[in-house]
Amino acid sequence: MSYKLFIPGPIAVSDKTYKAMATPIFGHRSKDFTALVEDCMPRLKQLFYTKDPVYLSTSSSWGIMEGAIRNVVNKRVLNCCNGSFSDKWFDVSKRCGKEADALTFEWGKPVDPEALDKALSSGKYDAVTIIHNETSTGTMSDISALMEVLRKYEDVISIVDTVSSFSALPIKKDELGIDVMVTGCQKALAIPPGLSFLAVSQRALDRSAKTEGRGYYFDFLEFQKNMEKSMTPSTPVIPLIFALRSKLDDIFEEGIENRYARHRANNKLVREWAYAKGIELFPEEKYGSVTLNCFKNNIGIDLPKLLDELKRRFKMVFDGGYGKLKGQTFRISNMGDETPETMGELLANIDAILPEFIK
Amino acid sequence: MSYKLFIPGPIAVSDKTYKAMATPIFGHRSKDFTALVEDCMPRLKQLFYTKDPVYLSTSSSWGIMEGAIRNVVNKRVLNCCNGSFSDKWFDVSKRCGKEADALTFEWGKPVDPEALDKALSSGKYDAVTIIHNETSTGTMSDISALMEVLRKYEDVISIVDTVSSFSALPIKKDELGIDVMVTGCQKALAIPPGLSFLAVSQRALDRSAKTEGRGYYFDFLEFQKNMEKSMTPSTPVIPLIFALRSKLDDIFEEGIENRYARHRANNKLVREWAYAKGIELFPEEKYGSVTLNCFKNNIGIDLPKLLDELKRRFKMVFDGGYGKLKGQTFRISNMGDETPETMGELLANIDAILPEFIK
Repeated sequence: MSYKLFIPGPIAVSDKTYKAMATPIFGHRSKDFTALVEDCMPRLKQLFYTKDPVYLSTSSSWGIMEGAIRNVVNKRVLNCCNGSFSDKWFDVSKRCGKEADALTFEWGKPVDPEALDKALSSGKYDAVTIIHNETSTGTMSDISALMEVLRKYEDVISIVDTVSSFSALPIKKDELGIDVMVTGCQKALAIPPGLSFLAVSQRALDRSAKTEGRGYYFDFLEFQKNMEKSMTPSTPVIPLIFALRSKLDDIFEEGIENRYARHRANNKLVREWAYAKGIELFPEEKYGSVTLNCFKNNIGIDLPKLLDELKRRFKMVFDGGYGKLKGQTFRISNMGDETPETMGELLANIDAILPEFIK
Repeated sequence: MSYKLFIPGPIAVSDKTYKAMATPIFGHRSKDFTALVEDCMPRLKQLFYTKDPVYLSTSSSWGIMEGAIRNVVNKRVLNCCNGSFSDKWFDVSKRCGKEADALTFEWGKPVDPEALDKALSSGKYDAVTIIHNETSTGTMSDISALMEVLRKYEDVISIVDTVSSFSALPIKKDELGIDVMVTGCQKALAIPPGLSFLAVSQRALDRSAKTEGRGYYFDFLEFQKNMEKSMTPSTPVIPLIFALRSKLDDIFEEGIENRYARHRANNKLVREWAYAKGIELFPEEKYGSVTLNCFKNNIGIDLPKLLDELKRRFKMVFDGGYGKLKGQTFRISNMGDETPETMGELLANIDAILPEFIK
């Protein structure tokens, strides 16, 4: 039973990547391991557009999203909330025992730079969290405008989640001035889940050094100490680092710019297919994500039944809406290795059965 | 460049396990995923000898070792320290902002039940950490005797690390009364690193509910809430759960008792080989680990050179001593899928070159 995944992560993984994962492992304190890390690192930094160190965390992205809170929040964090995952980050901040406020926007709206500026001008905050691409609603905030605001506040550390946008479009960490940029492997990188990445500025490392109770597993300074030797603090998920190396080969063979263009083209293809049926985008079009489309279910599709049949008959899966939007929206991912042909195949398969499932 | 690993983790992984890891992934909120978890869980619980829930954590073992501290320590933790990893657990406890004391024993000595009893009788502690098998020194403490002491202290939560002993000998969680039993996948389970397991008692869950600042990623109550639906709080490392299922098949096909006997036999084989050369065990023999032998380098082996040559000529690797014991000790693992034949091959290869490397 194997299905092609068009859900917004984890997504379809190539046979080549699976094969790379079966590379025989070695000890994580060996020269073989440091050579593997050193093989990945320059190209990984290039995808982050950074000269800062990039750390490898054996965890899902939530691990380092929590870790970032524990490392940099001394005073009070402002969590920008415009969807399920960003709302949850606010909850996680409080669970870490930190003082936190939510800057809330309606689901489907982006984070608003003016509102951010106003909130920060209170002087109450020493850290901000932003999710660049809110996967739950397919909403992509304008990170350039938001970072323009953040660069005015010298004492505020910016933590930006690029989990579901990284490597699908350029997010230029150093140029934008992002302090802590977090991502995962199971979205546009098309690696099975279990490895996450964070690039950390010197400012954020300095803050970390002054922050109590940050623990060990996600401690920035431990990551840094080990990365200076091309190592990780604890035993890492080595098969996924092999997968990363293989995927970096793929990405740079294709060309980064070509990869970005392919994501845009695939995204547009799906959006136009939907528009032709009168299906509306859930977020405002300008803020629609490049890696997935979240559509309103405004034509009365019986989503659970359609999804069952698509899976049974065509072995393909997309998503029937996240959290409180379940049934009211559906999401089609175009991340990773997809092409206009594979996206077209999905859409043709949906077309073949859709009329049966309009209520 | 592929080497057979006889280091104390990560260890050699079978082709069958690598193949299982390449099973096409599915969404972690799908019925396919819950079916996978439900397929593993009864057998995993059997290996823990527990009726308590067992949680799957996408992290190395250090993640949940830190997590356990954050979940159950309200008052003060007593960290039993008799080697590099247990010493580090004391350090990690303090880094979590917890009050902590070390109960220290010489490296190579086991944790002493009488000393533990005396320390606990102070009434200062609400949690204790013990590493059953100190991998750094190859020392296995008497967990039955230690748990006999701990069972007297109703308010003290016991956290036992069985990372490098689990599944190589019976550690009967419920019968012993261990509250939080922690292990990893990359030792005797012979799975590549990146997945860890913890079985948690109701008492420990109750304590967790009263503990502030435990966060999200390693929160026992989040693990519990999700495991009630056979899920995990965050996107899990699915390929390693496929590997787990495959490995459980192997283990129960072999028979648990046969597996234990095989580990004992392999361990004895290596120990007797060393004794015949006048090489001494680092810990007192009675407390020598069943999963690895840590030997004194008392016959003057040039370990770095021997290890290089063994790797170059025979594509095999063992360990040249951990931390402050580097060069003074060496460690040969017999965990996982090894047989008297494969262990014999390693020893014959060492014998073939050893005379060249005695100083």
